[in-house]
Amino acid sequence: MLDRTDALSALLAPNSIALVGASDDAQRIGGRPLRYLREGGYRGAVYPVNPKRDTVQGLRAYASIADLPETPDVAILAVPASGTLDAVRACADRKVKAAIVFTAGFAETDEAGRAIQDQMTGIARESGMRLLGPNCLGVFSSATGYYGTFSAILDGAFIAPGPVGVVSQSGAYGSHIAHLARQRGLGIGHWITTGNECDVDVAEALRWMVEQPDVNVVMAYAEGIRNRDAFVEALEVAREREKAIVFMKVGRSEVGAHAVSSHTAALAGSDAVFDAVFRQYGVWRAKTTAEQLDVAYACSRGLYPAGNTLGIFTLSGGFGIQMADDAEAAGLDVAPMPEEAQAELKAMLPYASPRNPVDATAQALTDLPLMTKYVAAMLEKGGYDFFTGIFGSGPASPTFAGRLREVLETASAASRGTIMALTMSAPPEIVRSYEEKGFLVHEDGTALMNALGALVHFRRSFDQAKAAHGQVPAAEPVAIGRDAIGEHEAKRILSAAGIPFPQEALVRVGEDAGAAAAAIGFPVVVKIASPDIAHKTEIGGVIVGPKDEAEARAAAAEILARAAKHRPDARIDGLLVSPMIAGGVEVIAGVTSDPAFGPVVMFGLGGVFVEVLKDVTFRAAPFDVAEAHRMIREIRGFPMLEGVRGAPPADVDALARMLSDLSRFAAANAAGIESIDLNPVRVLERGRGLVALDALIVPRA
Amino acid sequence: MLDRTDALSALLAPNSIALVGASDDAQRIGGRPLRYLREGGYRGAVYPVNPKRDTVQGLRAYASIADLPETPDVAILAVPASGTLDAVRACADRKVKAAIVFTAGFAETDEAGRAIQDQMTGIARESGMRLLGPNCLGVFSSATGYYGTFSAILDGAFIAPGPVGVVSQSGAYGSHIAHLARQRGLGIGHWITTGNECDVDVAEALRWMVEQPDVNVVMAYAEGIRNRDAFVEALEVAREREKAIVFMKVGRSEVGAHAVSSHTAALAGSDAVFDAVFRQYGVWRAKTTAEQLDVAYACSRGLYPAGNTLGIFTLSGGFGIQMADDAEAAGLDVAPMPEEAQAELKAMLPYASPRNPVDATAQALTDLPLMTKYVAAMLEKGGYDFFTGIFGSGPASPTFAGRLREVLETASAASRGTIMALTMSAPPEIVRSYEEKGFLVHEDGTALMNALGALVHFRRSFDQAKAAHGQVPAAEPVAIGRDAIGEHEAKRILSAAGIPFPQEALVRVGEDAGAAAAAIGFPVVVKIASPDIAHKTEIGGVIVGPKDEAEARAAAAEILARAAKHRPDARIDGLLVSPMIAGGVEVIAGVTSDPAFGPVVMFGLGGVFVEVLKDVTFRAAPFDVAEAHRMIREIRGFPMLEGVRGAPPADVDALARMLSDLSRFAAANAAGIESIDLNPVRVLERGRGLVALDALIVPRA
Repeated sequence: MLDRTDALSALLAPNSIALVGASDDAQRIGGRPLRYLREGGYRGAVYPVNPKRDTVQGLRAYASIADLPETPDVAILAVPASGTLDAVRACADRKVKAAIVFTAGFAETDEAGRAIQDQMTGIARESGMRLLGPNCLGVFSSATGYYGTFSAILDGAFIAPGPVGVVSQSGAYGSHIAHLARQRGLGIGHWITTGNECDVDVAEALRWMVEQPDVNVVMAYAEGIRNRDAFVEALEVAREREKAIVFMKVGRSEVGAHAVSSHTAALAGSDAVFDAVFRQYGVWRAKTTAEQLDVAYACSRGLYPAGNTLGIFTLSGGFGIQMADDAEAAGLDVAPMPEEAQAELKAMLPYASPRNPVDATAQALTDLPLMTKYVAAMLEKGGYDFFTGIFGSGPASPTFAGRLREVLETASAASRGTIMALTMSAPPEIVRSYEEKGFLVHEDGTALMNALGALVHFRRSFDQAKAAHGQVPAAEPVAIGRDAIGEHEAKRILSAAGIPFPQEALVRVGEDAGAAAAAIGFPVVVKIASPDIAHKTEIGGVIVGPKDEAEARAAAAEILARAAKHRPDARIDGLLVSPMIAGGVEVIAGVTSDPAFGPVVMFGLGGVFVEVLKDVTFRAAPFDVAEAHRMIREIRGFPMLEGVRGAPPADVDALARMLSDLSRFAAANAAGIESIDLNPVRVLERGRGLVALDALIVPRA
Repeated sequence: MLDRTDALSALLAPNSIALVGASDDAQRIGGRPLRYLREGGYRGAVYPVNPKRDTVQGLRAYASIADLPETPDVAILAVPASGTLDAVRACADRKVKAAIVFTAGFAETDEAGRAIQDQMTGIARESGMRLLGPNCLGVFSSATGYYGTFSAILDGAFIAPGPVGVVSQSGAYGSHIAHLARQRGLGIGHWITTGNECDVDVAEALRWMVEQPDVNVVMAYAEGIRNRDAFVEALEVAREREKAIVFMKVGRSEVGAHAVSSHTAALAGSDAVFDAVFRQYGVWRAKTTAEQLDVAYACSRGLYPAGNTLGIFTLSGGFGIQMADDAEAAGLDVAPMPEEAQAELKAMLPYASPRNPVDATAQALTDLPLMTKYVAAMLEKGGYDFFTGIFGSGPASPTFAGRLREVLETASAASRGTIMALTMSAPPEIVRSYEEKGFLVHEDGTALMNALGALVHFRRSFDQAKAAHGQVPAAEPVAIGRDAIGEHEAKRILSAAGIPFPQEALVRVGEDAGAAAAAIGFPVVVKIASPDIAHKTEIGGVIVGPKDEAEARAAAAEILARAAKHRPDARIDGLLVSPMIAGGVEVIAGVTSDPAFGPVVMFGLGGVFVEVLKDVTFRAAPFDVAEAHRMIREIRGFPMLEGVRGAPPADVDALARMLSDLSRFAAANAAGIESIDLNPVRVLERGRGLVALDALIVPRA
């Protein structure tokens, strides 16, 4: 049995390659990889396998994998669907470390195809040989000239090496963003497409990618994930190593999700949960492909700012205002220049607006020393994390371009760690010349502001990971059967996990509810206690407010009568008597089992916030208290917890602890629990904690 | 006195032009317009004015405006700030119809500059001569070769005529979008920059633009507006003539708004109100410059769809899913193909997904007749308003491009009015070749979906305008003094305007509140009635719930005592006794005076919706009931009015009538009223109307 990790390394950085189904026609699927390997200068051994030919594209061909003079690290299989399984088996027999399967027509097509794909997976599992695909476009690593792909975008021009990695389930998408990156002069170091993922999936590819020292940022694409733990681990490793992940996750719409399920075998899961996991682990979710490129471009140097202040230099007031709008939307702080510096700038040019945006007006175009002074003043005295200059099509003008570059270089001498960015609409060679001097160059100001906001986001996310000191400790699993669990028992279990409940009494049938109520203190709430009645109010199983023993007894009798009438079949444990808790802010918390991410904690405010506005948020369990704090602040109704209409601030610390405890319990008991509901939970005044008034645990069927 | 409308026509389409400050140096501000006019083939007379030269750029020069052999329609003034006022005066004396003032250094610089600018405005008012600028980049009309501009983007290449108009306060912004349009092969018929707007403003320029028969869509840019009525009228005319307006309005952020106020003299107004006015009049507000281009491009043919269904053709499942996501976000309906057609497609290619997105897989690349059949089936049987095909960089491939075009043309023969769009990443000449065949071509799928969504938006907006049958009838103005108005009087005034209030009694001091309450019916609410006490609850001036005459009397005495204690200075009209109205949905409505748009109606739900979520919306007054219905549906809490938690649906029709009545009242009384508050308003069960429980009118100081 091969070592699977070693075999993965062999797949993605092989020393020798066999191409099964090698074709002499360099345009065919079986011909392209060979051509690319040769044109790309791959230095390892390459063995074409084709029983019908002696040579392929000038290289000696072999009749079969078995006939090869050495065992290759990787076999690329460019064979028809009908021959794929045999080829995979031949590779495993020869102890090839990994195979890439281009061929389509398996799990994505029909049940027969799925069955064959499952057999491939079985061979991989047994032998330790790693499989990429089927139905994938393969891999490439530009620095080594390793092209295990037939992607047509490499026809005519390769993609330069660079600090960007690509991991994509879709070969077409992966090819397209690589093409767009090339257009933009952005080099790609490593590129992996995973297709049907019968073995290597997007999680494992992502993990490998973020561990590469020459990769600073990964552009990823997925429709769903197969292995939650591996995926989350990859995101954690990325964050720890300060590798930015910019993700295009599709299937967020109803029709899109439907298309995902018909397109691949990936578990779609809830898109809202994906979104939450991305926030949780600091992944930047791109809304558009253009944004994915823009953000990856900004991250490609691996430089992130200490803060979020931005100085905007412009020659046109209008552009400056537009950029200030976009900056604010992106969470950047367009902080004013120091008063004294403003006065100096104004003295140089009375027309100017020296605050920030600093508008030197078109005047600066004809007075370049003035522009130099302005830009230098911003860098020396503004103390900005980011500087951006808006230049439109100016840099494309032959008369202006050279002088502008001189101005910026001279002024930049004053920059100490400021991230320098420019907007311009100019031919690639001009853009490249600024990039070589260390400037980020975007054509569109809005896109630039969004990308700078992403840099701030990544810096914060990396720092949060450091502050978190590693893994969230797991809770102890508890014994959960498959039977329905009553409210009292659910509260007992969750209480042991740290969730606060009011002191309450379980009064068995025949016992005195009045005395129990007196012991708790009036007024009370009396509820039916039955594992079979999950929705108590529907049968009138809750009476709120008994003020003395007699009322409590009457309530108990009435509830038992209602239960007997509406649910004669139900097992009755008795009655729960609890104190009435008023005040505080009503919230709800819960746990659901997401098809992709397993136990997920949900949080929202009660009432209209959840019912009308669907104002809820999620986190994959487990997570720590700091993460819970961020979660709580994501809901739109968060100001309710800070106190509105004269109400005191609620105990958000207690809420964050509770959500984290709930998440640790949910993670430890994922195998036994389908869902948990805490509804309502009353978050009391700061310092007074919270109480969950009801609890429901649904065991896994 | 010249006719101002005639003079505006002369400004924007002159028969003869003088250039004052004409320079022999074709790169200077005084030289460029002359060069552009000559290179652009302008057919009217052009008169350089320069007292120091006999000829300028080969044309005979004149010493002054007064010396010209005829009175030109337009004088372009390229003179220093110090000489501008004299030049304007000379033009007016010569009865020149219009002048374009490039020079900066007026209202945007300091008070002295503003004073000179005001003098220019005075000359324009007195003479009827129209002035464009100062501090503007002028105008051009590409079909006639009229270049009254020194914009450097025309250096080297003009912009082809086309169905797009540009109206921009910022010359730099106007130049930049013109440059981007040219890059995209989008022709611009007319281009106007208004600068400081001492006379002609963006509203008037917009009005002229939408009246041009060769303009289908206008890209506009503004930081604020000066003339609300002219602006709204321009938007109305645009809608009536089915001209799309795609607007970049800057200054939405705090720092942006600050920069606007320091940059121009335009009234910024509230950005939220701008946003509402754009929705109200069907303007598409672009969030980014790229979006402005994308939407204008899609609108440039003036073709709008009947509905919003979209068929997506793809060769890659992943791209199809991504586009379906974007389509849903843009409000498009990715409706499935008819079942029968799906079966036929599946029979042709078992790998395919024939639903929609229709994924013919990479197989279709090697089997073009198959692709033709697929696309034709979508057009013939899908009945889509839009068709889009996703082709990535395929069309740039020399081997593939020609055949793809053939496929699309053959299949398109089946299209009956379907708007055909493609995404591709290809060189301009290839893109142009598809555009010539009638395809919209975008590089980015998200941008395309957004643009198609805009086409649906415009169709609906144009239809809404037709359904509205013109202007909203004005209400009768009422006499409003400058003194504070008490609640009872406010209710009387608004009641006459159609706002429903509960029957209530004003009980004078000394009269019997008990008897008045009995006449109304218990329980009641008793409130202090004083024009001087706007916030009644703050002094304990409201008692809710008296159940009999004695309680009502006691409440009245208590309130009068509290008022005497807390506000001994206040004039006391007596007490208001009203019935307690329970149930319904609590909403608030109001009127504010926006600095830019005047009376604006605000609407929101009561309670947390307005206090915590700021869930309110606006409309400029007046508006009709249909517009009020759209307004009501904009708030996030709208489902509350449809009935939640078993509550019946509220009387939204009555609410819409009320908002429209309020808007007509506010418009008719804009001069006398600063603000109106109706808070709370209870919208009762459908068919039972609504009642406003409190009313406050603040007269204009």
